[in-house]
Amino acid sequence: MTVELINIGTELLLGTIANTHQQWLCSRLAELGMPVARQVSVPDSPELIRQAVAEALARADVIITTGGLGPTSDDVTVEHVAGLLGRQLREDPALVEHIEAFYAARARRVPAAAKRQARVPEGALVLPNPNGTAPGLVIELNPNPFRRDGKPGWLILLPGPGRELKPMFEQQVSPLLKEKFGAGQDYVSRTLRTVGLGESLVQEKITVPLGELVSAGLEVGFVAVPWGVDLRLACRGPGATELVQRAAEIARGVLGTAVYGEGADELEAVVVRLLTEGRKTLAIAESCTGGCIANRITNVPGASAVFLAGFVTYSNASKQSLLGVESAALAAHGAVSELVARQMAEGARRVTGADYALSVTGIAGPSGGTAQKPVGTVYIGLAAAAGVQVQKHHNLYDRISFKQVTAQQALNLLRLALVGGV
Amino acid sequence: MTVELINIGTELLLGTIANTHQQWLCSRLAELGMPVARQVSVPDSPELIRQAVAEALARADVIITTGGLGPTSDDVTVEHVAGLLGRQLREDPALVEHIEAFYAARARRVPAAAKRQARVPEGALVLPNPNGTAPGLVIELNPNPFRRDGKPGWLILLPGPGRELKPMFEQQVSPLLKEKFGAGQDYVSRTLRTVGLGESLVQEKITVPLGELVSAGLEVGFVAVPWGVDLRLACRGPGATELVQRAAEIARGVLGTAVYGEGADELEAVVVRLLTEGRKTLAIAESCTGGCIANRITNVPGASAVFLAGFVTYSNASKQSLLGVESAALAAHGAVSELVARQMAEGARRVTGADYALSVTGIAGPSGGTAQKPVGTVYIGLAAAAGVQVQKHHNLYDRISFKQVTAQQALNLLRLALVGGV
Repeated sequence: MTVELINIGTELLLGTIANTHQQWLCSRLAELGMPVARQVSVPDSPELIRQAVAEALARADVIITTGGLGPTSDDVTVEHVAGLLGRQLREDPALVEHIEAFYAARARRVPAAAKRQARVPEGALVLPNPNGTAPGLVIELNPNPFRRDGKPGWLILLPGPGRELKPMFEQQVSPLLKEKFGAGQDYVSRTLRTVGLGESLVQEKITVPLGELVSAGLEVGFVAVPWGVDLRLACRGPGATELVQRAAEIARGVLGTAVYGEGADELEAVVVRLLTEGRKTLAIAESCTGGCIANRITNVPGASAVFLAGFVTYSNASKQSLLGVESAALAAHGAVSELVARQMAEGARRVTGADYALSVTGIAGPSGGTAQKPVGTVYIGLAAAAGVQVQKHHNLYDRISFKQVTAQQALNLLRLALVGGV
Repeated sequence: MTVELINIGTELLLGTIANTHQQWLCSRLAELGMPVARQVSVPDSPELIRQAVAEALARADVIITTGGLGPTSDDVTVEHVAGLLGRQLREDPALVEHIEAFYAARARRVPAAAKRQARVPEGALVLPNPNGTAPGLVIELNPNPFRRDGKPGWLILLPGPGRELKPMFEQQVSPLLKEKFGAGQDYVSRTLRTVGLGESLVQEKITVPLGELVSAGLEVGFVAVPWGVDLRLACRGPGATELVQRAAEIARGVLGTAVYGEGADELEAVVVRLLTEGRKTLAIAESCTGGCIANRITNVPGASAVFLAGFVTYSNASKQSLLGVESAALAAHGAVSELVARQMAEGARRVTGADYALSVTGIAGPSGGTAQKPVGTVYIGLAAAAGVQVQKHHNLYDRISFKQVTAQQALNLLRLALVGGV
């Protein structure tokens, strides 16, 4: 069974927005055992939409499109897909009613353009959209005239906005796919997430231990970003689950504490879970990361049970007044120094009464570096009941990556302390 | 002239990582007047890579691929593109030397696999990679055997890591494309970024005023996210620059202060610029946004000149001890209330001495709501010399979108105050 994804929208080809649906849908479909074989983006152009849909119908069993179902003039997907399939559009009375109710509930009048969204191709299954006005559509082609073998094809059209697409996929499309195509037991994929090791080193560590399983059909993939390496272990066919399970055990064995989670686990969620389990509290004092660590921690539902307070002490004055960093330390060593990182962590812990306090001070760039302390220099502190430790790193990246890498190192320092019971 | 983009990597089809290169490259190519006509992602599969490259060569003048050039076993792009084109691989001595020097500079031995990256197809132009070991490659097909008309094709292979791909594109590929294909004067695209209006409302406001220009060839596109609507104005052919310029002036006229920037402008960068120009300073007190606003402000280079300090006062105790919020206010009105938002903003301004202080308190969810204050309720305060104002919003989104929408509203409140001279 082959699945293809078509993302429709000129803005995707102009780079005005990120193609976040690709990642989200691909990840969901992989979990269903139906990994996407090919993803295409085309602009809001009738000809290119028709071409992409026709090509995909010639190859794939299920084609999912996103976008181009909205009310505005550049939303042309339904019209041109219907044209390609030679189907008439009909106005769906239930959809007209839904659109009117949708606007009434918001005390807004119905824009004329909105009613276009009630027109659906003959024979299409309508997927109601409680979060918007554009319905999803499922069109079965049986036989599929675009395929030489005539094997049936499923064309699923989904709206572009994420808050409409995501619940529609989870609640309506996913159950339909499961019912129609089974659980897809023949593909298993697991991803181990690591921090602190480079890509080549991860590969070197696992190559020999996993050699035998690779010969038996294990696929190994790597995704490296500056703040970590993900290791993907996958297999097709009978016995895939057991083989991937064995591979994951072996990889965890050789990679040790570098593995912080699996799949979509984020390091901040692991840290919040460890703090919650240990009934410990956290404070954070950030200079160069500017709130990035606190922002990540508070992305995790339930963070409020463990996170007491964060300080973004960007100025020297705020390091002194809020955290009690000594002016002598600033004068003698500078704001980016081991001593100031230490005093920031101690101060945050003292002021909030938290069990753990992280601190970060460094030079994110692009300017502000010196010969002795070049851009990228950073000190990370962790204060706990047992005392304070400070790490020095040199993170030479663009400003945003610098913040992300440094936040990752700080969260990992805390994770290792929590795992080790420090 | 037609450009297509092929992103290679199994992780893109499994949703393990986001396809950030699509947005970045599409945006750069659009700026060069060479918008991408189609983007495809394929996994690290020899057959699917060959198929996608062959199809693109049959249609496009320039094909850019990303990924699959690295040292690990799943990096197969060069090998299979060479196979498709019927070209031998040769070892490039300069690349061997570069790889050895790269590892030597990092005091690491050369992994055996790394040397694979020195093998390049016959006749390829090698693009040096100062930030990694995989070179970029440019292969000219003249004539192009995949096209019926034999028109020449350019195949450009770029490495996957962003910190290698981006400088390589800017410093080597972009000049090559400009030299070969001219400045691409026939396509002009501008994007106005708005905040505070819905997609249908933006369309309604501009439709009549821009009607005549649309008849004259103006393309209008919309990108709506919960925290704003981008309006794209584009045109092809002679006179495009002037037409888009007139359209932008008209749209700015009817949309007024809802327009905060153009192109890749971020609201936080606009705010930092306005603060810098006015020589004003800022402090931020965040509860439910958890550092998101401070993180965005500190993403902007030069933020340290205007941003004094941020507080992430997640607990009630920290609201009292750090910001001076009164326990009576918390007891009588709750942490999510107009009065507490007011006291947080006043406290942050008083404690730091900043000219402006933003505050946010609300319920991000998924839990913590009540009948009277449901999930999504948020109060945003702004303290300035002229006094304190507090806005109430109801932002009913998932947790991450909630933080983003609320941060956008807070930054916009400050922007309007700065623009209005409050």
